[in-house]
Amino acid sequence: MSTLKIISLGGFANVTKNMFVYETPQDILIVDCGVGFPEEEMLGVDLVIPDISYLKDKKQKIRGIILSHGHDDHIGGLPYILPQLPQVPVFGPKWAIALASSKLEEFKVPAKLEEIGEGRKITLGGFSIEFIKVTHSIPDTLHLIIKTPVGTIYHAADFKLDLKPVMGEATNQQKIITVGKQGVLCLLSDSLRAEVPGFTPPEEKLEEMFEKEIASCSGKFFVTTMSSNLSRLKQAIDVSLRHGRKIVPVGRSIEKNLEIAQRLNYLRYPPGVFVPRKSINQFSPTALSLLVAGSQAQLGSALDRIVSGESENIKIKPGDKVIFSTDYIPGNETAIYSLIDNIYRLGGEVVYQDIHDNVHVSGHGSQGDLGKLMKMVNPKFFLPIGGNFRHMAAYQRLAASLGFAKEKVLLPDGGQIVEFFENGQVGISQKIETRQVLIDALGVGDVGEIVLRDRQVLAEEGIVITVLPIDQGTHELVGDPEIVTRGFIYIRENLEFLHQTKSKIRQTVKNARARRLDYRLIRRDVQETLEKFFYSSTGRRPMVLPVIIEV
Amino acid sequence: MSTLKIISLGGFANVTKNMFVYETPQDILIVDCGVGFPEEEMLGVDLVIPDISYLKDKKQKIRGIILSHGHDDHIGGLPYILPQLPQVPVFGPKWAIALASSKLEEFKVPAKLEEIGEGRKITLGGFSIEFIKVTHSIPDTLHLIIKTPVGTIYHAADFKLDLKPVMGEATNQQKIITVGKQGVLCLLSDSLRAEVPGFTPPEEKLEEMFEKEIASCSGKFFVTTMSSNLSRLKQAIDVSLRHGRKIVPVGRSIEKNLEIAQRLNYLRYPPGVFVPRKSINQFSPTALSLLVAGSQAQLGSALDRIVSGESENIKIKPGDKVIFSTDYIPGNETAIYSLIDNIYRLGGEVVYQDIHDNVHVSGHGSQGDLGKLMKMVNPKFFLPIGGNFRHMAAYQRLAASLGFAKEKVLLPDGGQIVEFFENGQVGISQKIETRQVLIDALGVGDVGEIVLRDRQVLAEEGIVITVLPIDQGTHELVGDPEIVTRGFIYIRENLEFLHQTKSKIRQTVKNARARRLDYRLIRRDVQETLEKFFYSSTGRRPMVLPVIIEV
Repeated sequence: MSTLKIISLGGFANVTKNMFVYETPQDILIVDCGVGFPEEEMLGVDLVIPDISYLKDKKQKIRGIILSHGHDDHIGGLPYILPQLPQVPVFGPKWAIALASSKLEEFKVPAKLEEIGEGRKITLGGFSIEFIKVTHSIPDTLHLIIKTPVGTIYHAADFKLDLKPVMGEATNQQKIITVGKQGVLCLLSDSLRAEVPGFTPPEEKLEEMFEKEIASCSGKFFVTTMSSNLSRLKQAIDVSLRHGRKIVPVGRSIEKNLEIAQRLNYLRYPPGVFVPRKSINQFSPTALSLLVAGSQAQLGSALDRIVSGESENIKIKPGDKVIFSTDYIPGNETAIYSLIDNIYRLGGEVVYQDIHDNVHVSGHGSQGDLGKLMKMVNPKFFLPIGGNFRHMAAYQRLAASLGFAKEKVLLPDGGQIVEFFENGQVGISQKIETRQVLIDALGVGDVGEIVLRDRQVLAEEGIVITVLPIDQGTHELVGDPEIVTRGFIYIRENLEFLHQTKSKIRQTVKNARARRLDYRLIRRDVQETLEKFFYSSTGRRPMVLPVIIEV
Repeated sequence: MSTLKIISLGGFANVTKNMFVYETPQDILIVDCGVGFPEEEMLGVDLVIPDISYLKDKKQKIRGIILSHGHDDHIGGLPYILPQLPQVPVFGPKWAIALASSKLEEFKVPAKLEEIGEGRKITLGGFSIEFIKVTHSIPDTLHLIIKTPVGTIYHAADFKLDLKPVMGEATNQQKIITVGKQGVLCLLSDSLRAEVPGFTPPEEKLEEMFEKEIASCSGKFFVTTMSSNLSRLKQAIDVSLRHGRKIVPVGRSIEKNLEIAQRLNYLRYPPGVFVPRKSINQFSPTALSLLVAGSQAQLGSALDRIVSGESENIKIKPGDKVIFSTDYIPGNETAIYSLIDNIYRLGGEVVYQDIHDNVHVSGHGSQGDLGKLMKMVNPKFFLPIGGNFRHMAAYQRLAASLGFAKEKVLLPDGGQIVEFFENGQVGISQKIETRQVLIDALGVGDVGEIVLRDRQVLAEEGIVITVLPIDQGTHELVGDPEIVTRGFIYIRENLEFLHQTKSKIRQTVKNARARRLDYRLIRRDVQETLEKFFYSSTGRRPMVLPVIIEV
């Protein structure tokens, strides 16, 4: 009997780590391959990726990977996961393929990438897939119509129904309606904003805010947003040019994305529009707009460095204005608020969501968008994805309010498997293991190079924990740092090495203190210094985990 | 020459840790004595209190402490700070004095407490003080009119202008206008919601939400809110009684506050309205409303224990509904969302601010309230308090928008001193030290007994750090726990003791795993077990800090 299993290797009820498996007895199709972000308790870890151990004895069944769009939580896992799979083709829309390609080159991971889009139809084993171009906060986002032996699946990863997109075209809703009429077994749908009434406003709505804020700006105009949000960057550039300002991209991710976007003709600006950051002193403040990475207040990001005075030639001064055109990702609020406070302390102005309604619009559809898709597709079953359990519950309430039976909305959790049978039955069964696979990076966001540190490597390279007794008032090291190693050389028996390590720590804490009283800074600097020191002296790269104890 | 210094011992630009010093060459008056909450990096620390080292050689000048209202960030520092001062009288409104008295008794700290209120006038050294009763999210909140040798100060701690309070009366605005007409040198004002347009809605606005939600509840009705928010509890009780439900207070802070409120006649309900939690199984779910502590998802709070299945006889079941009638304190969002997800997993319904506009109203005035006070008081200077720097900046913009000169709004930061001179001049001068003084408690919120652990004690009792290598998938201890001590017995030389400690840890991790995969649970249980073990075996109470390393 033919069946179709749907599995989330990142776990159902997760917003990020998107990686879905469609499995028949013969074939496996994978949709998306994203990263996630660690929980607070995972000290020293920067990224988590989906757990592919379910695929271990099924690798020969994998016919291909399809990327829905270019966001990191949909493509960021490729460099870590592709090397563990047989060479399978990776399909995606142009912008996603461009970003994936750049990422894979950086990691020197070979891959077979192929562009697809609306109008194309591909066949992978027993699956045939067509695409619908939709709107989101990144160009070239696709929905997938997957024909399987048990029925048609409509895979609606992140989207909103933006009728007036700043880049690209509005969604072809007529096509969705046609697909719906042909009969859809299950709609997998974005559910992140299922709690929010109405339609998500179009990107265009921010135009007026940008216009008003730049007109009243008597200094440098800063805009920070997600680096991948090309249409937001375009809006900021266009309004800046109208006001006679040149554009300064600041931060590796923004610089890279703008460079690729120009190369691929997503953006077309004449030479001279962009000014490299090293030349900004040749311009008056009112002649400059800076597009800055670090809207989530990531430590070490371009914006964080500018505000903390660590940037060589970019300073915040009275008259300058910073637009936070972004949502706060849960968990980042405290760091973002602290950054905003510090911009005010420097005399700058800040425009952020707490004081301005139209500083950001989400890329995810609200109840209006989600409900409209439900009605157009009119499937036999619904499966909310891309949200936590409360968002899935909200999606279920929304469906019920539109007249769909509550039981039609499947709410699998974690590693549960959804299985469709030929007779039209569905079951939520057994649990697969979906462990958090941790990635530790030397730097965060814009600094340093990302390095894979999966459990294998951790076991080979080991870990060094340094416990730093720090005076909570002065931030001085008030005692001997404690060094604990696991799987690294036994440091206690190597006295000379131990002394050198402690001396490095002392010097680093002293230098960090001189710059700013900030535990995050001490932790980062100690980590970076020791990583370099251990590598140069032992050729090994243990994970370094500084633990600060206040005394 | 007469001068008046205004100093914030908790630091200006802080929301919590309220403790203000008014100082002339002869006298010191203190307003409020609150606690604050630790930043993320302060591992193992539960509370921070203001730094009173500025008062060290000035203690004989202190004439008294006045409490504006009974919130913990205004009174919670008393048990730690009063013992360090000569016996000075502590004044406050009835409800604040009741809460302070209960807290001080628990800590066995003697104090001279005296009730004051609107209509009273007290003289403390060269200061004479009158009071105006205002509305906030706790009964009996006062503003202070402080006559000093250099002019009158209007001290407006937390407030909103609620025209229809659920408990008590609306603010006597005529009296404020009269004070303003007599001339005010400086208005110190709440600024926490200076970013928000309009007036803060009245408490009464929640009535309809409670009514609608309880009417459609087919199981137990849970309400969680700040335990000190008596009028919110009253609303929940009143609506429950109208729907024939009995009231079950759950959690030490809620039980205590309701008990005091009944004793002092803030609430008057006939016997039989309240049901002790141990008797709930005698009632049908639809006959019960549970008022539960832990609205910030504090680990170990009543709500956290119920949701995680640790409560003996209170379970969340399909049909039950939980109302989160609360703001999310920045930093707590992730834990709160995780709690909400888990309630849905249990089949319960949740009503929270992301899906319902009227589930909570703030106790702090918005731009409407704040601006109205500005105009009524019409002072020579403004000094925003009770907010971070961005809130102070927003307060300044608000004043400017109402026609006040921007320069009239003083923006001191951290330990800066504001000084008023007889000639009408003002200066922001030198910085005093305002270090974070850390308090470590054995339990958080509703569990355990609060214990003072200031730096002195820490130095005497020491600290034990346990590094636990935990498998990130199974949460098993995958190696020997590392034990690091500082200022405690040198554990490495005491092998038997070391073995016992490790064995305790192993057993505890095993038990914790069996209940739930949650690092917070492991940390808490290991901490509690070792604290008990160290005390019973050594008679000492070192701080215990479990550090989890994922491998």
